[in-house]
Amino acid sequence: MVKGNVVVGQSGGPTSVINSSLVGVFKAAKDAGVEKIYGMRNGIEGFLNKKVVDMSEYVKNELDIELLKRTPSSFLGTCRFKLPSVEESEATYKLLFSIMEELDIKYFFYIGGNDSMDTIKKLSNYAEEIGSDIRFMGVPKTIDNDLAVTDHTPGYGSAAKYIASALKEIIRDVNTYPTESVTVVEIMGRNAGWLTAAAALSRAEDCPGPDLIYLPEVTFDYDRFLEQVKAVKKKKTSVVIAVSEGIKLANGEYVCEDNKQATFEDSFGHKSLGGTALYLADFIGANLGVKSRGIVFSTLQRCASHIVSRRDITEAFMAGSEAVQAALNGETGKMIIFTRTSNEPYNIICSTYDVNKIANIEKVVPDEWIINDGTYVSDEFLAYCRPLIIGELTPFMVDGLPRHLFLD
Amino acid sequence: MVKGNVVVGQSGGPTSVINSSLVGVFKAAKDAGVEKIYGMRNGIEGFLNKKVVDMSEYVKNELDIELLKRTPSSFLGTCRFKLPSVEESEATYKLLFSIMEELDIKYFFYIGGNDSMDTIKKLSNYAEEIGSDIRFMGVPKTIDNDLAVTDHTPGYGSAAKYIASALKEIIRDVNTYPTESVTVVEIMGRNAGWLTAAAALSRAEDCPGPDLIYLPEVTFDYDRFLEQVKAVKKKKTSVVIAVSEGIKLANGEYVCEDNKQATFEDSFGHKSLGGTALYLADFIGANLGVKSRGIVFSTLQRCASHIVSRRDITEAFMAGSEAVQAALNGETGKMIIFTRTSNEPYNIICSTYDVNKIANIEKVVPDEWIINDGTYVSDEFLAYCRPLIIGELTPFMVDGLPRHLFLD
Repeated sequence: MVKGNVVVGQSGGPTSVINSSLVGVFKAAKDAGVEKIYGMRNGIEGFLNKKVVDMSEYVKNELDIELLKRTPSSFLGTCRFKLPSVEESEATYKLLFSIMEELDIKYFFYIGGNDSMDTIKKLSNYAEEIGSDIRFMGVPKTIDNDLAVTDHTPGYGSAAKYIASALKEIIRDVNTYPTESVTVVEIMGRNAGWLTAAAALSRAEDCPGPDLIYLPEVTFDYDRFLEQVKAVKKKKTSVVIAVSEGIKLANGEYVCEDNKQATFEDSFGHKSLGGTALYLADFIGANLGVKSRGIVFSTLQRCASHIVSRRDITEAFMAGSEAVQAALNGETGKMIIFTRTSNEPYNIICSTYDVNKIANIEKVVPDEWIINDGTYVSDEFLAYCRPLIIGELTPFMVDGLPRHLFLD
Repeated sequence: MVKGNVVVGQSGGPTSVINSSLVGVFKAAKDAGVEKIYGMRNGIEGFLNKKVVDMSEYVKNELDIELLKRTPSSFLGTCRFKLPSVEESEATYKLLFSIMEELDIKYFFYIGGNDSMDTIKKLSNYAEEIGSDIRFMGVPKTIDNDLAVTDHTPGYGSAAKYIASALKEIIRDVNTYPTESVTVVEIMGRNAGWLTAAAALSRAEDCPGPDLIYLPEVTFDYDRFLEQVKAVKKKKTSVVIAVSEGIKLANGEYVCEDNKQATFEDSFGHKSLGGTALYLADFIGANLGVKSRGIVFSTLQRCASHIVSRRDITEAFMAGSEAVQAALNGETGKMIIFTRTSNEPYNIICSTYDVNKIANIEKVVPDEWIINDGTYVSDEFLAYCRPLIIGELTPFMVDGLPRHLFLD
């Protein structure tokens, strides 16, 4: 029997596999004999209001575990809450630690991206300061794949698989018409182009793939863009272009801001982007006199659990499970990382890493993987990405639709 | 051995199962001993330029047949070509019949929607006029489900399944945030709301479904809309609204036209719509001061073959196959129709019907199935629609992505 309870939370934008990590934490903690495994409602924000659930009341058996693995979005709810620094509000920390004391929490797991790792960093550092023995572990999660140190992040593979699959279908759809057209597909990724780059996976024996790919890592230029589209159009009836929502001009402005689209800022100061594809489709239509269409993958990139990567699901589960093992072994202030030892056959090693060296660092697509004057990605990228989308996990279909586990 | 050859074409907007009908025609014709089964490239438009392929060169074995069933969009390519009337251009008819004579065509199959049935009607009537023995059969296909007489159309079930599945995931995604939001999801359907109504299928034990559904059958009014959204917002944190791309104001204008979005007209005089969801999301954001997002399902509704309805695939195949049987039995100027004899257990009868009584008539959602002051659909609709989305056909996955059969 392990002394003390577990609390686990989910934070930031959800993914198709974030619940697999939750299940990984839950099952490992349960198997280790932890008495109570609490789930935070809406992450640290809900936890500050003592909004927790007893996970065992919702995940009652092996079927529930399998169903939760197939459930997209954050089962416990999420938040975009920036934990203030100790200097800004020590009261917040005192409150959090008092809630943990009250619930006899000894192990704290947070499944999330960069901002969540910032939370783990702050909490573990504060625990050290006050001599608390509560252990804080980060479980990586983000479709953006922009976390430092780890080879990749759970959530990325499934989003990449969705993007490449949907793009294959869209390309087949546009190619069925004999008329000229340009289709601009908008893909998520604020500053890192990992997801947009995954569009290249759709190029295969049975699919030409996108003709041009624009990542946020490369400064966008309207004139150059137009020339590049024109050049492809000379050779092809249907042109398909993948663009990141976050492409920026030389002056630092987002292309979508030219669309005068309302932009929101979240509490981390991130702008909510949108409108890039529609704007560029209009731009091409107006300048090249060709039928053009903007397609936005939108939130389905992160929630299309009906077509996930089996490998991603498995690794997400493992990340949660390993975080529990590490915490039980006395580790704290760490995040689970993957280190790739081989592409073919694919192999990774799962270990832990100091969260202080991970939090708040954004990993972008390396320059040398961006080719063709900033309009495509290299075979090295494909060799890196392809193993991450392998395998399927069949949804549980009820009445013709995927079934999910729900909390309330 | 059957005397004379077969030609088959695909027309109009593609679907996820249009190639199943193609396979149905191909297999039935081959099994009957037809020597040559020609496929028109890009429908009647390509056929007028004698662009045909020998289907047997591409569909070589049973595996190809299964792969083609899993391939979205029109394998042979499509067109939006309006066949002129005989009065307008008898030369066109003479050209078509001379090409058919040259290729020794005795059986002509056209897979499509209303406009394609208009083509079958004109050609079969002309054949009768000139005493030709060539038989013309229509195979129904449209995600819009707007063809008269038939209970439903192949293509609709799979599109409905995609819409309901994706919507379940989107609803789960928006509900994970503790903050207020309104999401407007735009669904295809110019004048008929069958697809938008299918959004209601997502309401189940594990999903609240959309809160409001706006069909093109009901005149849209901004003020009433705002009041209806406000009323839901009082009760719920996340509001999800399904709207048809084709909703219209009392003055007959499309809502999306208010967006001053470029609209295209095809050769049938149909306007290409878009922008409804984004416009309404902005409208709500501006009027209710709430975070709002527009999501457009776009062409994935008609090409997401990775999540099709097995029943739809089977029926699409059957429609193609039965068209061949009917033509071989001497029928012409007919379309395949489905008549439902029972909902539970689901049962249909497949037969033929005079295309003159089908072409150019649009079937819309009946008034009595539209409830809640024009904001939802009834249980009768659900009982009608649910059987059509049942069952799955697993894609053939290669390197983590669905594989398709391709022509060139």
